[in-house]
Amino acid sequence: MINQDRLWNRLMELGSIGKQASGGITRLSFSEEERAAKRKVASYMEEAGLTVYEDAVGNLIGRREGRNQDAPVVLVGSHVDSVYNGGNFDGPLGVLSGIEILHTMNEQEIVTEHPIEVVAFTDEEGARFSFGMIGSRGIAGTLVRDQLQNKDQQGITIAEAMSEAGYDPSAIGQAARPKGTVKAYVELHIEQGKILEKRNASVGVVTGIAGPLWLKFVIKGEAGHAGTTPMNDRNDALVAAAGIIQLIEEEAAKTGSTVGTVGQLQLYPGGINIIPGKVEFTLDLRDIDEAVRDKVEQRIVTGAERLCEQRSVRLKTEVLQRVAPAPCSSVIQEKAKEACVKLGLEPISLPSGAGHDGMQLTELCPMGMLFIRSKDGISHNPAEWSSKEDCADGANVLYDTVLQLATKE
Amino acid sequence: MINQDRLWNRLMELGSIGKQASGGITRLSFSEEERAAKRKVASYMEEAGLTVYEDAVGNLIGRREGRNQDAPVVLVGSHVDSVYNGGNFDGPLGVLSGIEILHTMNEQEIVTEHPIEVVAFTDEEGARFSFGMIGSRGIAGTLVRDQLQNKDQQGITIAEAMSEAGYDPSAIGQAARPKGTVKAYVELHIEQGKILEKRNASVGVVTGIAGPLWLKFVIKGEAGHAGTTPMNDRNDALVAAAGIIQLIEEEAAKTGSTVGTVGQLQLYPGGINIIPGKVEFTLDLRDIDEAVRDKVEQRIVTGAERLCEQRSVRLKTEVLQRVAPAPCSSVIQEKAKEACVKLGLEPISLPSGAGHDGMQLTELCPMGMLFIRSKDGISHNPAEWSSKEDCADGANVLYDTVLQLATKE
Repeated sequence: MINQDRLWNRLMELGSIGKQASGGITRLSFSEEERAAKRKVASYMEEAGLTVYEDAVGNLIGRREGRNQDAPVVLVGSHVDSVYNGGNFDGPLGVLSGIEILHTMNEQEIVTEHPIEVVAFTDEEGARFSFGMIGSRGIAGTLVRDQLQNKDQQGITIAEAMSEAGYDPSAIGQAARPKGTVKAYVELHIEQGKILEKRNASVGVVTGIAGPLWLKFVIKGEAGHAGTTPMNDRNDALVAAAGIIQLIEEEAAKTGSTVGTVGQLQLYPGGINIIPGKVEFTLDLRDIDEAVRDKVEQRIVTGAERLCEQRSVRLKTEVLQRVAPAPCSSVIQEKAKEACVKLGLEPISLPSGAGHDGMQLTELCPMGMLFIRSKDGISHNPAEWSSKEDCADGANVLYDTVLQLATKE
Repeated sequence: MINQDRLWNRLMELGSIGKQASGGITRLSFSEEERAAKRKVASYMEEAGLTVYEDAVGNLIGRREGRNQDAPVVLVGSHVDSVYNGGNFDGPLGVLSGIEILHTMNEQEIVTEHPIEVVAFTDEEGARFSFGMIGSRGIAGTLVRDQLQNKDQQGITIAEAMSEAGYDPSAIGQAARPKGTVKAYVELHIEQGKILEKRNASVGVVTGIAGPLWLKFVIKGEAGHAGTTPMNDRNDALVAAAGIIQLIEEEAAKTGSTVGTVGQLQLYPGGINIIPGKVEFTLDLRDIDEAVRDKVEQRIVTGAERLCEQRSVRLKTEVLQRVAPAPCSSVIQEKAKEACVKLGLEPISLPSGAGHDGMQLTELCPMGMLFIRSKDGISHNPAEWSSKEDCADGANVLYDTVLQLATKE
């Protein structure tokens, strides 16, 4: 069994980095706050007796050797970057649980066949550049230089932020793990939903991850004087956007499983007495079922085009990222359920509505995920919370699952 | 007759200050661009032989003495600040025409009974602080220190911006003109609408000015994870705002005369994968008829409250300014129409949908306005345009109107 006090104390200590007046946490990638969090995590890795290194995309890694140093590695991990004003568990739980199980193995002098590495991935959330899972893409070998041209709200590209932080954007290929060198990836995360809470369960085994589709809408109307342009003679980009925002809600709600969110919106020129001539906004659209998601996308885009035509404004849509839903490995699911049963926990299966680094790794290795219960299902919010006991249950299921995966078969 | 080349050349020259890459003009109050524009205008005033001074709120004034230096002054003028990415005629036309008619009087050695002053008012537009007509309020004596606490998007108050520019916010009372010291105020402006264009007329005489009402809406919902919060379990502040934005359009359009515009909107926290927990936006609502405007306001606020209640989000509204519509002086209207007839122009009357400095001065003195034709009715936009000939017609009508007002009666 892992040391639940140590895990909890590290969670609380790490949570003080990037804390806002609101109580929420803001740790954007390549920011001073994220760097400080990584320094703290590196110190935990050292305490746990791991060999600490960083790869070419800034993933922070702690390695514990196996009996066979050349055997494919078992990866565990998550991320320590956050959304704006987010919570304390989304990401850190998986990183610190990974460190905790290796710390426990060292204390118990357990020898595994396979080496095990715990990873704190670079920028899972995508909050800064509207482009996420940078570290896991790097390890999967799917990160390409064009993607480093995504910009933050100050116009800084990922490549520029990497350079400024001391990484070489032209060397990202070095982070890619060759096929056959990774045996499995397992991540422990908070559910960020209410399924486990409703079933009174601390831990669940994830069946698959919904694929996020991120679109950018740009509407061009005509700016004009707010006082002298009659209502029937306007091409107001914001009123058109308002119609599309309502359409998105309607179309997503229809399926019962899809979720659609407009999280960013800018209007131009932005004077109190000027009709908006241009509006840009983003859409985050998700479903476990790719066909359902893509049908909703089509309905939204078709409806938006019709609406913009009626209002004589122009619409342009752009795909920022389109990630396919990712099924979890049935082998890992079985081992995780076995671990639950051993610990006296009901082996509950559930899907993941949120995206996670694991979905980038499905081409590289079998992937699995464990969830623990989130209070009220709240996440990306200062009120995000999971109990100390649930964190410990999750880490213990992770421990047993990883021990099974790291054993010679 | 005024010198139309000189007027046009000054318009074009002044238009190069604050010019954006888009071709539009941004000259916010107390900015470097506005200061540069005022320096240029002061040089024109000096060329015209006027005595140049600034008052306590930063109004730039050029004075031409009358036969009787103690007689009430006839004021003409407008402003040189602009909205974001605005046009070249909104404001500068009135200031430069005022200078032009006084320049012409000096060249023709015309002596008037009353002194005449041309004013470039401080911050008519309100684009920077969401609070406008600062200079004309100062002259009217209605500007109060509380109003100087309005902030720009960087959090700088009007008082702070004044201090930084070298004005003393505690001395604003000194700008107030005592009752009886101003005989009349007349302003030449572009129409910013399509009435004159449709009637094939270069000049019109304004009957009254619609009063702008500026409201701020603050909606508080609940932030949450975009991937794991089901559509039926959200309190999305932006979707609620979208409903209100559509309601505003519907309610304003119903009357046939009201105009309603949402020109600014911010959402929080602003992550691409976070449900917006808070949205703030502004409403600019206008009508020539105060009762009609206030009824539309009531319908919008009541509808917005109902909508927010249905969506379980909280709504707060705040009045930023509530200006009553202002009728123009019938005496000035008659003199202006007489001037039109003398110049062979049809004396057309029309209302003003836009607010102007004159509405602040109605308690101080009789107020009148002249409009010239705007190409396609476009304003607050880089495409804002009036022809050289129309500018000259407007300045000539202003010239004759002011001569009549400055004559001993």
